[in-house]
Amino acid sequence: MLYLEDIHVGMKRSFGRYEVTREEVLDFARKYDPQPFHLSDEAAAQTHFGRLAASGWHTCAMTMSMFVAEMGVNPQASLGAAGVDELRWLKPVYPGDVLRCENEILEVTPSRSRPEMGSLKSRTTTYNQQDEPALRFTALALMRRRPAEG
Amino acid sequence: MLYLEDIHVGMKRSFGRYEVTREEVLDFARKYDPQPFHLSDEAAAQTHFGRLAASGWHTCAMTMSMFVAEMGVNPQASLGAAGVDELRWLKPVYPGDVLRCENEILEVTPSRSRPEMGSLKSRTTTYNQQDEPALRFTALALMRRRPAEG
Repeated sequence: MLYLEDIHVGMKRSFGRYEVTREEVLDFARKYDPQPFHLSDEAAAQTHFGRLAASGWHTCAMTMSMFVAEMGVNPQASLGAAGVDELRWLKPVYPGDVLRCENEILEVTPSRSRPEMGSLKSRTTTYNQQDEPALRFTALALMRRRPAEG
Repeated sequence: MLYLEDIHVGMKRSFGRYEVTREEVLDFARKYDPQPFHLSDEAAAQTHFGRLAASGWHTCAMTMSMFVAEMGVNPQASLGAAGVDELRWLKPVYPGDVLRCENEILEVTPSRSRPEMGSLKSRTTTYNQQDEPALRFTALALMRRRPAEG
């Protein structure tokens, strides 16, 4: 288990592999973002997307899925995230794309008021199979410190 | 149809009604955010959530759903969003919660290089049924200007 003490500024991780299917793009869009360009190639052709593209929030959700899978491989004493800054949808995500993630630690701050925890600031970038960044954001996460022995 | 010229700094809108079901919280979490506190009351009781809580990205998706429904009622010449800043998950969202949104326009900026469009900065807050803010973010959206007559 990784605790706050194990995380250092500049640490980088690459992880994840997510195959984006047409069925899943449509399923997410119907439930949460039924704008025409997320529902059909014909409507998307009228926009800068060009063809059916995933909802930006779907790309966030797929990125989270890769994160949680990575935490299963390398467990962390995570206490969840407080928020996200500078989230940018840099490229459309299309059915057939294969996504992966990179994460870099920007700040590690032990809590002054709560000695058992601290906060992490990290930048995540989600790339497509052509190594083009599709999504980037900075997350503010909370993490436990290593419990005292004894 | 609302175009960029129709949008002014300080404009506010209240909209949306989203009933959060246990089934949907579990369904989203299984697909995209299978952390224990998003999958069972028992695991969530060990954390600050206290009981089963929705993934923060699910709250974003539900908020988007209310947005798109609102655009169906009051159509806008939207060209999608470039990104989001200052996204904060302020309160957990639980099964049984009923969400609604408020949106306020912060900036309206005609594009210098592309006279047919411009950008909007707005702040969205998603409230639960106790009028507690659960999610807040600032979105950067693109919108068409009113086409010239002719």
